[in-house]
Amino acid sequence: MAGLLITFEGPDGAGKTSALTELVPRLQQIVRRPIVVTREPGGNPISEAIRQIILDPKNTAMDKRTEALLYAAARRQHIVEKIRPALAADKMVLCDRFVDSSLAYQGAGRDIGVTAVGKMNKFATEQLAPDLTLYLDVPSELGLQRIAAHRQSQNDRLDQEALSFHQKVRGEYLALVKQYPQRIKTIDATQSLEQVIAACQTVITTTYRDWFN
Amino acid sequence: MAGLLITFEGPDGAGKTSALTELVPRLQQIVRRPIVVTREPGGNPISEAIRQIILDPKNTAMDKRTEALLYAAARRQHIVEKIRPALAADKMVLCDRFVDSSLAYQGAGRDIGVTAVGKMNKFATEQLAPDLTLYLDVPSELGLQRIAAHRQSQNDRLDQEALSFHQKVRGEYLALVKQYPQRIKTIDATQSLEQVIAACQTVITTTYRDWFN
Repeated sequence: MAGLLITFEGPDGAGKTSALTELVPRLQQIVRRPIVVTREPGGNPISEAIRQIILDPKNTAMDKRTEALLYAAARRQHIVEKIRPALAADKMVLCDRFVDSSLAYQGAGRDIGVTAVGKMNKFATEQLAPDLTLYLDVPSELGLQRIAAHRQSQNDRLDQEALSFHQKVRGEYLALVKQYPQRIKTIDATQSLEQVIAACQTVITTTYRDWFN
Repeated sequence: MAGLLITFEGPDGAGKTSALTELVPRLQQIVRRPIVVTREPGGNPISEAIRQIILDPKNTAMDKRTEALLYAAARRQHIVEKIRPALAADKMVLCDRFVDSSLAYQGAGRDIGVTAVGKMNKFATEQLAPDLTLYLDVPSELGLQRIAAHRQSQNDRLDQEALSFHQKVRGEYLALVKQYPQRIKTIDATQSLEQVIAACQTVITTTYRDWFN
């Protein structure tokens, strides 16, 4: 595949999605090939249906391994229907969350174990890995403060988790940064949104100069 | 766990479900501890919802690995909500299909690979394996003839598969029988239903004499 897969990761409240929303139009002005912006479940009906099961507040009996398998299933379908075709068409794919999120949230956050979740996800990805990952790092307290400030009526299951959960998630992200220093670049997400966006843009455009004017 | 997990396996048309339906009341007359009869998705809302996605004829775009992950997710929830509690309560659990079905149908039938499907399923089962498996063996041609004779209005995706698929499924079952001769006992399912039921009963009651009067 000649395309490029760039993922955006970070604990809740890192501002990842906001940064991506602003970053995309700036990159599109200077990129030489099409950009595809996506996130799981990626708009395909199968992954959307899976996601509904995961997030349904009624499903309080859901086992954490069931949840991890469902995330992997939705991911698989997203890869097959959207990411792989885009990469095969030489496009730059910007994806909001990918396998690293499962390692951090299910593997560490929910204590299933990072190795077990990683192996299981390889069944889903068939070794497809990001070319570059931008990790937006934010201390858990600040991340949770930002979520609380923005929250209005969200009450899905994930939002009910405690600080210790978020700290485990961040701890695993920091471990991944150490483990994959070539692939994962850390962005200080305590900065202003504008600074975060600029830092993301700098990493991408300097890493892949030939993709940009 | 002091309970007993007995699974029933076989390609479509082996008469597995019919045999189990007749077998259960006979065993219940002589068994000393409670019997739980189940099959995936096992009646729990989460697994039922997952199963609906798998069997929805509209989901023609479903990737075979997505399907395998969904089966594993439904299995996991079934284990947690129904099988493990029954085993912990010292019950005899009779389960219509288990991991061997995924090895045969997804691993071999859909060509994902038996090893990959097996590893992924260990994430779901956490090593829970049947104590005994009754494999009802039937040649693919006969199995398909039986299905055609019984079919009325079933049109889910699985029924649309061809003979070659069923042959691959049976081939993997036969390989598993060779691989796990202690666990898996073969029942000749070309016999009459009455003979199949009697054979199943004999294997179970002679293998676990102390469970029966």
